[in-house]
Amino acid sequence: MTVEPVAAPAQTGLSVTDVLPSVRRPAAITSSEIFAAHLGGKLETTSRIPLLDARDLSLAYTPGVAEVSRAIAADPGLLDVYTGRANRVAVISDGTAVLGLGDIGPGAAMPVMEGKALLFKHFAGIDSVPLCVDTTDVDALVELVAQLAPSFGGINLEDISAPRCFEVERRLQERLSLPVFHDDQHGTAVVVLAALFNATAVLDRTLAGLRVVISGAGAAGVAIAKILLAAGVTDVVVCDSRGVVSRDRAHLTDHKPALAAMTNPRGVSGTLVDALQGADVFIGVSGGTVAESAVAAMAPRSIVFALANPDPEVHPDVARRHAAVVGTGRSDFANQINNVLAFPGIFRGALDCGATRITEGMKLAAAKAIAAVVTSPTADVVVPSVFDDRVVPAVAAAVARAAREDGVARR
Amino acid sequence: MTVEPVAAPAQTGLSVTDVLPSVRRPAAITSSEIFAAHLGGKLETTSRIPLLDARDLSLAYTPGVAEVSRAIAADPGLLDVYTGRANRVAVISDGTAVLGLGDIGPGAAMPVMEGKALLFKHFAGIDSVPLCVDTTDVDALVELVAQLAPSFGGINLEDISAPRCFEVERRLQERLSLPVFHDDQHGTAVVVLAALFNATAVLDRTLAGLRVVISGAGAAGVAIAKILLAAGVTDVVVCDSRGVVSRDRAHLTDHKPALAAMTNPRGVSGTLVDALQGADVFIGVSGGTVAESAVAAMAPRSIVFALANPDPEVHPDVARRHAAVVGTGRSDFANQINNVLAFPGIFRGALDCGATRITEGMKLAAAKAIAAVVTSPTADVVVPSVFDDRVVPAVAAAVARAAREDGVARR
Repeated sequence: MTVEPVAAPAQTGLSVTDVLPSVRRPAAITSSEIFAAHLGGKLETTSRIPLLDARDLSLAYTPGVAEVSRAIAADPGLLDVYTGRANRVAVISDGTAVLGLGDIGPGAAMPVMEGKALLFKHFAGIDSVPLCVDTTDVDALVELVAQLAPSFGGINLEDISAPRCFEVERRLQERLSLPVFHDDQHGTAVVVLAALFNATAVLDRTLAGLRVVISGAGAAGVAIAKILLAAGVTDVVVCDSRGVVSRDRAHLTDHKPALAAMTNPRGVSGTLVDALQGADVFIGVSGGTVAESAVAAMAPRSIVFALANPDPEVHPDVARRHAAVVGTGRSDFANQINNVLAFPGIFRGALDCGATRITEGMKLAAAKAIAAVVTSPTADVVVPSVFDDRVVPAVAAAVARAAREDGVARR
Repeated sequence: MTVEPVAAPAQTGLSVTDVLPSVRRPAAITSSEIFAAHLGGKLETTSRIPLLDARDLSLAYTPGVAEVSRAIAADPGLLDVYTGRANRVAVISDGTAVLGLGDIGPGAAMPVMEGKALLFKHFAGIDSVPLCVDTTDVDALVELVAQLAPSFGGINLEDISAPRCFEVERRLQERLSLPVFHDDQHGTAVVVLAALFNATAVLDRTLAGLRVVISGAGAAGVAIAKILLAAGVTDVVVCDSRGVVSRDRAHLTDHKPALAAMTNPRGVSGTLVDALQGADVFIGVSGGTVAESAVAAMAPRSIVFALANPDPEVHPDVARRHAAVVGTGRSDFANQINNVLAFPGIFRGALDCGATRITEGMKLAAAKAIAAVVTSPTADVVVPSVFDDRVVPAVAAAVARAAREDGVARR
């Protein structure tokens, strides 16, 4: 999940609250607690069956296991029945875009990937394996993951920098008949769309009538733009550090010409501040800052999702002076727009139905399911709590149903 | 671990005992029990820390985790302190030499690798990850494993066919500063040497005076030949399916010229039966059969380790008519020579001391430690039980000590 770094330097003894005096936290966490929780790592591999004596071992290992291997060799479909593969997801990162810390390398990414594996297990019962890899070459990444496919029922790509992440995901999904999902793109996009569904419901508006401005043209920004367009938004403007991404801007590189081609129908140019003039929705996934005056210049009854973490692009209390609905990525403000609302249920549903890929329909279904968990949305409740235990079953069921409708479910 | 397949066809309802009427088993295991034990796989990923509320999550994942990532980015040595890497071993197979089933592919190898992971955890507390890979290309295997190194404290190669296994292991160990261990080679060799230490003690003989014949010139046979030579045996003859591997034999391929150069000092030629004439020790790792007459033609007070599994090259009751010490790979006869006596303790010791490789000295130390657990060896007890809980600590301590002596320990 792409968020910005916490501001506390490592091992200073300062708590996160100490260095973020402007915001409240329900309970302070200290560096010493954080490091204590990580000592020796957060995951372990345990047995699902008893191993008390030689007889147990002869069932779980030799000679018994040979019968299972032979059965799978004769009928490869049994791999997903008699091994853990069908419930096992690789969490793969090259460490190039870790949280908001940037390219810190595969080793430094490991705590995040172990944490992600905890979330997979905790929220969806999925056994995942953190794999931090020592290459940033697209060809090598694709080869490596493709060769690991016999071991996994799904591939979660994580914290791989743009634009490489787009090609890695596309090529892997073309090659493999199992779900390949770059959470920084699609997890974020799904939850943003869910929040927008409910925000527009609260404001009695439709997606089609919105002018949306996205700050950030990386993995999350691109995926949000795409899912909003797929969901019926027509006017999306994306800004990067140089301003509005528009067809007539010089030197558009990598994925940005394609992004420019699908967005910005009114041909807006200039800065983010220019783009926000009269806009209905601001979605920040850049880590930059937005002045109060820019929020004030948006259209009446606007929507602000300032997702940089821990420091939102604009403080939610400030944004709320002007906007009708405000969300952040943080747990200590209303409307926490957090990937954990999406990826556990999406993978649960995809694995349950043996999906061969994650389609646009499955992502839209996930967003609708997340939104629908909130039966009576208000300005302060456009997404459910990440601890609402209705979310994962609802998302999983919707995703599996959409997979069947899209013809990508194997069961 | 390389053993021969069980004879029972998958899912026939026949028990292993039914199809192996000649041997007793402590308790019959049935196919239905085996498949039931494997349903959904044998492993799961669990959390080592509580995950009860938002506060727990903020310690284990964002925002807290960012502090740990930053600390590792600043000091890579902390990777082994604050993640599970230092206690995590990859169990890697390409499925080309699975048990005695041969090249059944990576998917069919998965139950065996999951079983191996159970043994790592059960016997040594090591968290291992089964990775079955969809390539048999040496370059690709080496690249893949090398790129995964940031995620693992050690690499256990498993069921990779000879001669590729030799090159894969060598190249990986040259490239990586962590233990790379092909268990089919070295685990088997270490336990055979341990058994031979005690067998010669029982018979009041020395290794240097032995004539040893090994049946099998694959991964296990080559590694056994090497460790015996390293331990002081001088007369080792290796046979493959075409007979004695000798320097003057035509068409020696792959690794066999090197094997011929280091073995067979008397220039023996002919068949396995010819080689056994007057030999002191037979070590079978081929899955072939040896007639009673060939055992009878060995020297007086001979040693027979018939390790094919479940059908030893010669039935131990038959061998015992002529040989003074007889061992097999099976749990239902005396002297079970089983890799599980070696690899858990070897990895435990190597990980505990941060070894950068597994040296010959560490393997010899492991063999001595296994042998020494048997305080009063007899003809029927030359190795400890795999359930003897003194084995792993003794092996681990000896291996770590040897690593320090060899200068490969980082702590």
